[in-house]
Amino acid sequence: MNFREKETEKKTIYKGNIIDVYSYKVELPNGKEAPRDVVRHPGAVAVLPVDENGNIYLVQQFRFPINQELYEIPAGKIDSGEEHYECAVRELKEETGMSSDDMVYLGGIYTTPGFSDEIIHIYIAKNLSYGKSCPDEDEFLSVVKVTKEEFIKMISENKITDAKTLSAYAKALIYGGI
Amino acid sequence: MNFREKETEKKTIYKGNIIDVYSYKVELPNGKEAPRDVVRHPGAVAVLPVDENGNIYLVQQFRFPINQELYEIPAGKIDSGEEHYECAVRELKEETGMSSDDMVYLGGIYTTPGFSDEIIHIYIAKNLSYGKSCPDEDEFLSVVKVTKEEFIKMISENKITDAKTLSAYAKALIYGGI
Repeated sequence: MNFREKETEKKTIYKGNIIDVYSYKVELPNGKEAPRDVVRHPGAVAVLPVDENGNIYLVQQFRFPINQELYEIPAGKIDSGEEHYECAVRELKEETGMSSDDMVYLGGIYTTPGFSDEIIHIYIAKNLSYGKSCPDEDEFLSVVKVTKEEFIKMISENKITDAKTLSAYAKALIYGGI
Repeated sequence: MNFREKETEKKTIYKGNIIDVYSYKVELPNGKEAPRDVVRHPGAVAVLPVDENGNIYLVQQFRFPINQELYEIPAGKIDSGEEHYECAVRELKEETGMSSDDMVYLGGIYTTPGFSDEIIHIYIAKNLSYGKSCPDEDEFLSVVKVTKEEFIKMISENKITDAKTLSAYAKALIYGGI
């Protein structure tokens, strides 16, 4: 079956630092017209760091759009021209100070395909070594180490509510890395 | 530790059908100023339907922002004034024709807290009964029934890449419903 929607009109609404916003008109499979607002994003990576005892490293940071602090796996947006593997290595180092000589790519996830093209590339990182973190100057976060049992409890108690963190956990379980 | 960012300026960029876009200035914990673009969304629900044999029901639909069809659990945005439970019942019925007399709320997830306030409320639906689907007139989708093994294989082969679907799976595993 072909449900493809055909672009008939495109209007630039906004060019921001990270996101751009466009308003489209599309032709639906039934020939009718519909509006589609799209938030374009450069893409991001997220890294699930697991140590030799099965502990998981999270970062706790304030998220302005939802006005609260979240627990998330280390993550960040891909810089222009950067490969997602490079980005994963960089973000893990910047946010937690850690390096890994065993990073495995678990695939990309679409965070909100109804209105955005954002993809987050998920890695699991093992064989960790520890150094000094170096977050961006406008980035404020703390690193939190939890056992696998604590991590699961935080999910069931809705203390972990971040979709990329939950998605990475699902992928790591299936991959067998956790 | 308090990483809160204080709003100092707010500009409305766009009011769309579903999303609104705002550009803020915030004061960081170090006193400096930073820009924050925020996409405001009314919130949504997603329902993981599991039958008595452990089969899972997905919908396949075209997603214009990423120009491809995705497999996702049934989902949709909350109408104005609607409770998320009502919305879950409605969307399950509209998209798949199914009803459930055992719907359990597994909590909310933030899909992309870096630039949006979208929350998706996740349900697992069991004891399913089957009727006729009635999608919105601008909604084109097909329902796909998969075994749990097929579902897991689709994740490991990156045929399921939707974050809410992966997150719902993680939550359902921990809840014990799958």
